[in-house]
Amino acid sequence: MSFFENKDSSQLPIAVFDSGVGGLTVLKELVATFPRENFLYLGDTARLPYGSKSAQTIRLYLEQNIRFLLEQKVKAIVVACNSASSVLEKNHCTRVPIYEVIGPGAKTACLLSTNKKIGVIATRATVGQQSYPKAIKALEPNAQVYQQACPLLVPLVEEAWTQDPLTNLIVYRYLSGLKDLEIDTLILGCTHYPALKESIFKVMGNSVSLVESGQAICREIEQDIARNRLAPNPVGKGDVHLLTTDLNEQIQITAENILSPVTPHCFSHVNLT
Amino acid sequence: MSFFENKDSSQLPIAVFDSGVGGLTVLKELVATFPRENFLYLGDTARLPYGSKSAQTIRLYLEQNIRFLLEQKVKAIVVACNSASSVLEKNHCTRVPIYEVIGPGAKTACLLSTNKKIGVIATRATVGQQSYPKAIKALEPNAQVYQQACPLLVPLVEEAWTQDPLTNLIVYRYLSGLKDLEIDTLILGCTHYPALKESIFKVMGNSVSLVESGQAICREIEQDIARNRLAPNPVGKGDVHLLTTDLNEQIQITAENILSPVTPHCFSHVNLT
Repeated sequence: MSFFENKDSSQLPIAVFDSGVGGLTVLKELVATFPRENFLYLGDTARLPYGSKSAQTIRLYLEQNIRFLLEQKVKAIVVACNSASSVLEKNHCTRVPIYEVIGPGAKTACLLSTNKKIGVIATRATVGQQSYPKAIKALEPNAQVYQQACPLLVPLVEEAWTQDPLTNLIVYRYLSGLKDLEIDTLILGCTHYPALKESIFKVMGNSVSLVESGQAICREIEQDIARNRLAPNPVGKGDVHLLTTDLNEQIQITAENILSPVTPHCFSHVNLT
Repeated sequence: MSFFENKDSSQLPIAVFDSGVGGLTVLKELVATFPRENFLYLGDTARLPYGSKSAQTIRLYLEQNIRFLLEQKVKAIVVACNSASSVLEKNHCTRVPIYEVIGPGAKTACLLSTNKKIGVIATRATVGQQSYPKAIKALEPNAQVYQQACPLLVPLVEEAWTQDPLTNLIVYRYLSGLKDLEIDTLILGCTHYPALKESIFKVMGNSVSLVESGQAICREIEQDIARNRLAPNPVGKGDVHLLTTDLNEQIQITAENILSPVTPHCFSHVNLT
């Protein structure tokens, strides 16, 4: 089975993987930045969320998803999920490049931060793996990195309570400690969090720099194209195919809301197990 | 593999299944009511939650879990998970009895309600299946049943914000409509919800009758023992074995908190896929 019929490998789609539909924030950014690329998105909605699960289980799921995507003939794989990125082995070897979001996010944060006090909000899994602190310290050994797990933010976004006084209160509960520590840059270490930017600015003030996975990964891919590490698609039309391992009305509504105004060319269910 | 070595089938354990550790509220009630029974608990933590997923996916998981539990030599299976109970086929045929929580919960609600205005709070999956309204109407055709999906309540319990002003506000948001409808009985249609009883009483008032899955299923099993449909264990010591499909520190802490003061005799990881 292949979702795109192409002969030239540059014309193959870029695969984007996430535990659910949150990674569509990353896909949206990719579509806007690379309008001639085609994309194949896989959301593992049958087993989401990853962020509350063990590294061992997330790694198992990630391997199954990568194997599936490689079978679809793609020219690159973007692991948009922070929890999955945080357990990806650095030397994970495939015949196509695999992009993850931790490294680019850390690099962007180091560039943006003036006082080198950097906050990270993420799932419990991502926080537990210490991936962002390690990646930031490798680039900027004197940086101070403060992490906060925010397990309720994903359910709040999925409940669509993004413009809501209750959400502001919960965001305040999670973020006020980071504000007191005077961070000037905050990594949104989960693909759902960009939907809560308004609440986050309310708590942190407008001067804080927010790092989003989508923007960070786009810069990384732009650089790889400039360095001839990834061949751009000369003739693509920005086709977007969505696959999820579970599909119901709620998933479809949430997905379409996040991706809007981009509309997918197909939205199908796929069984991985 | 068998977790209990017994010759007489009455001495086999009762299996209790849930999507995660919420079903331990049911197990705790079973242990208190049947102190001579042994129990084998399976929590599918690698794939939780079920409540946001499609009926098709929940049914697939449920079948895999039942198959696994039957291999363990058990004398009965209690499906403690409301979302899983709501997709269980009535004629699901196995060599041991399978108990689900919807029927007993509906029966208890009909007994408790005076004005026959019954509320149901549950996951999106359980609400979508309409299982409680159907079961209640079969017993009490004139009853008025009002459902409310409450997707944020499970994450709130898992975050351990059970005694919290923010939780009271969220419970108020979900339940105030049911209060206005003057229900006198409320089914807690998810195993996590008993942890929020205090907040629920604050919104609904102390006169509302709450129906908990654990108590309802205990009455059902008591009746089956009295009718000789299930043989009680004459020599058991209340051994409790816990199995989860994913296991990390957070899962273990939450599980032990819910089950306390009952302590499990073993807590292991098991791989179903």
